[in-house]
Amino acid sequence: MKYESFFKKHLSFIEKNLSKELLVREVRPKVIHQAMQYSVFTGGKRFRPVLALASCEACGGKLSEAILPAMAIELIHTYSLIHDDLPALDNDDLRRGKPTSHKKFGEANAILAGDGLLTLAFELLAGVRPAERAVRLLGEISTAAGVHGMIGGQVADLEVFSRSKTLAEHDFICEKKTGQLIRVSALAGAIAAGAGAAALKRMACYGECLGLAFQVVDDILDGDGYCRVLSKAKTVQKAERLIQEAKKIAESFGSKAKGLVFLADFLASRMPG
Amino acid sequence: MKYESFFKKHLSFIEKNLSKELLVREVRPKVIHQAMQYSVFTGGKRFRPVLALASCEACGGKLSEAILPAMAIELIHTYSLIHDDLPALDNDDLRRGKPTSHKKFGEANAILAGDGLLTLAFELLAGVRPAERAVRLLGEISTAAGVHGMIGGQVADLEVFSRSKTLAEHDFICEKKTGQLIRVSALAGAIAAGAGAAALKRMACYGECLGLAFQVVDDILDGDGYCRVLSKAKTVQKAERLIQEAKKIAESFGSKAKGLVFLADFLASRMPG
Repeated sequence: MKYESFFKKHLSFIEKNLSKELLVREVRPKVIHQAMQYSVFTGGKRFRPVLALASCEACGGKLSEAILPAMAIELIHTYSLIHDDLPALDNDDLRRGKPTSHKKFGEANAILAGDGLLTLAFELLAGVRPAERAVRLLGEISTAAGVHGMIGGQVADLEVFSRSKTLAEHDFICEKKTGQLIRVSALAGAIAAGAGAAALKRMACYGECLGLAFQVVDDILDGDGYCRVLSKAKTVQKAERLIQEAKKIAESFGSKAKGLVFLADFLASRMPG
Repeated sequence: MKYESFFKKHLSFIEKNLSKELLVREVRPKVIHQAMQYSVFTGGKRFRPVLALASCEACGGKLSEAILPAMAIELIHTYSLIHDDLPALDNDDLRRGKPTSHKKFGEANAILAGDGLLTLAFELLAGVRPAERAVRLLGEISTAAGVHGMIGGQVADLEVFSRSKTLAEHDFICEKKTGQLIRVSALAGAIAAGAGAAALKRMACYGECLGLAFQVVDDILDGDGYCRVLSKAKTVQKAERLIQEAKKIAESFGSKAKGLVFLADFLASRMPG
């Protein structure tokens, strides 16, 4: 079964809620709302919010309980892409075949649209109830997105940009730049469902494995990253081991965790041959 | 009495806590921590966090109750200055006589240091207890800092940059770009103190008057902004009216609100002649 079919309900729930939140109303200055909306709707897979919703289901929660953190994480992911694409960073003109934000709206608006999405992400979390759950989500998500997480990974990546990385450096960068936000997507769904400490811990482990597997598979498809510091066979082995580990944890959540199992299988299915 | 003497206790409490939070530990990548620390300690007046602490006191709270939102707002203010100074925006090489972040650390690190400070601001709010208070602060501060507040003001300012503004446009920009964050500083102190609905409303009004007065006085000192759309006499009148209004509200909080009265008087004292 295809990703889009399996998660049809999740994806339409996410799109509906994101569309409502990013509606371009007749509010001045219009351009910032247009820039934010543009980047949120460029045809991504919504891997992180789908994961948050699937994790919430696996812990016995309803989709509606996890939608705010799921959206918040997707907005943080989107802002990070806008800022990463800027001329001073990766200097990319295209993302998923469309002009990047600074190409379409100018550099100043792209910087501010990124800032706006990051701020909006946290504004959404203020709507979570009970308040204890909102605060827990705020702490976990801000830490994962911050300088000890995603931003730290991006800075480390820029530092070693001009030379080849060691395996340890690449591990460090991936764990932070990609891994932390995927890990917290899984964890956030479980927090939103009101899961207990043991389930939260297992879900964080699942998210860690899935996040790293996500990056390794990406590297295999791009012939980049891990493929430069490990042999092809070892890279594939690493991905397979992480995916198996994620699947094992997912299965420990029982039949409600079909979505989590599917996500692990989905990564496996992306690998060539 | 001078600002620094009157708020000696407040200022040293703020510096102590900011220093602890922005310590450059031996954590990779070090440069992002250095960049964040650099911009937070460039000799600002700490107007916003002082206001938050003074507002908390006026509502019967202790300084320690408001320190996290006070710091969060100062970090948001700092990030906004870093991003505003970037080549794509105001392109400033100096801020308070020192090289701007992008001049010292490069553009990529400046963008990411701004992102890091904004994210850290929200991370700090996750430490506020009770959780209901944290969530209330999160909602108010994120809204004030977002596209309907500070960021919206910055975008509007860039839009009209190349031509002269009307009074209505300048009002709109100031209310958002400067006003919202000062308003929410006052409000945040009151929320942190656990103030009731009526006091919160009055404190928001105080913050609104003070924030706009702050900008008008700045314009008078710079010969810019309001001075371009109003006569000198009318600009001074506008500032005096706002300061009087702020003072009247401050006095309604009684003797615990000495700090708030001082802040209004401080703005009055900055006006020439």
